[in-house]
Amino acid sequence: MNAMDKIIDVLLIEDNSTETSLINKILDHDKWGVNFNRVGDGMEAMDYLYKKGKYKNSKTPSLILLDLDLPKKNGHKVLKEIKTDEVLKCVPVIVLTNSNDDKDISESYENHANAYIIKPIDFDKFKRDIQCFKEFWFNNVQLPIREY
Amino acid sequence: MNAMDKIIDVLLIEDNSTETSLINKILDHDKWGVNFNRVGDGMEAMDYLYKKGKYKNSKTPSLILLDLDLPKKNGHKVLKEIKTDEVLKCVPVIVLTNSNDDKDISESYENHANAYIIKPIDFDKFKRDIQCFKEFWFNNVQLPIREY
Repeated sequence: MNAMDKIIDVLLIEDNSTETSLINKILDHDKWGVNFNRVGDGMEAMDYLYKKGKYKNSKTPSLILLDLDLPKKNGHKVLKEIKTDEVLKCVPVIVLTNSNDDKDISESYENHANAYIIKPIDFDKFKRDIQCFKEFWFNNVQLPIREY
Repeated sequence: MNAMDKIIDVLLIEDNSTETSLINKILDHDKWGVNFNRVGDGMEAMDYLYKKGKYKNSKTPSLILLDLDLPKKNGHKVLKEIKTDEVLKCVPVIVLTNSNDDKDISESYENHANAYIIKPIDFDKFKRDIQCFKEFWFNNVQLPIREY
């Protein structure tokens, strides 16, 4: 089964609305069937992933884009919780952050982030990076078989 | 520090010489400084990574491309050993395999493979996939800070 044969559920964990719109726009208009969801803080992210409260009908995402600087529960804690959960740990988590701090990079890989991307300040570079991310993860990679 | 400012040490763990030559050729001729190394079985891979015997001067790679079907020690065992080692676990491991078996895919992500790529049979697709892999991991991603 190829990733292109099915809907790809992307969960963006990001509090910045402008960046959310931009990422959604780049992901959501081509040959891949992308179902895009976004939560704005770390607590809400865990509710979504554990299907709690208003998220009781949420799907386990195919892939997660995770900001580090988040309200309520920061990205490192979210990442650690995902990657130590027996089911959720299989979901690829790509850190997408403004931080180029060595400590953030090391801690993310130690906690099994699948990749770490520093958000470019330049708009065109940001667009190219998201497109490249999409090409690699949606077209080249075999994503995990999901358990709902 | 950007991945483009430095040499990227790629370790390919692959027993097939034809595929090794092809991957090396695609990786080794452009703007990125790639130092390409290859080992042909799982035991040799661990010697390389633990800097044993003839590999005592090896560098911890920036990134690993891992076949699953390997002599002596298979790819799943190699992956598990890397991803449970306190230092090595930070090195991104991209599984590059002929297997499209759900079990192999699940087991790889459970053991924290950073991505899983099924080798395309078509040569041009194979070339495009490796180029896309390269674009993403060498240009977009911030690779871990390495400890030697």
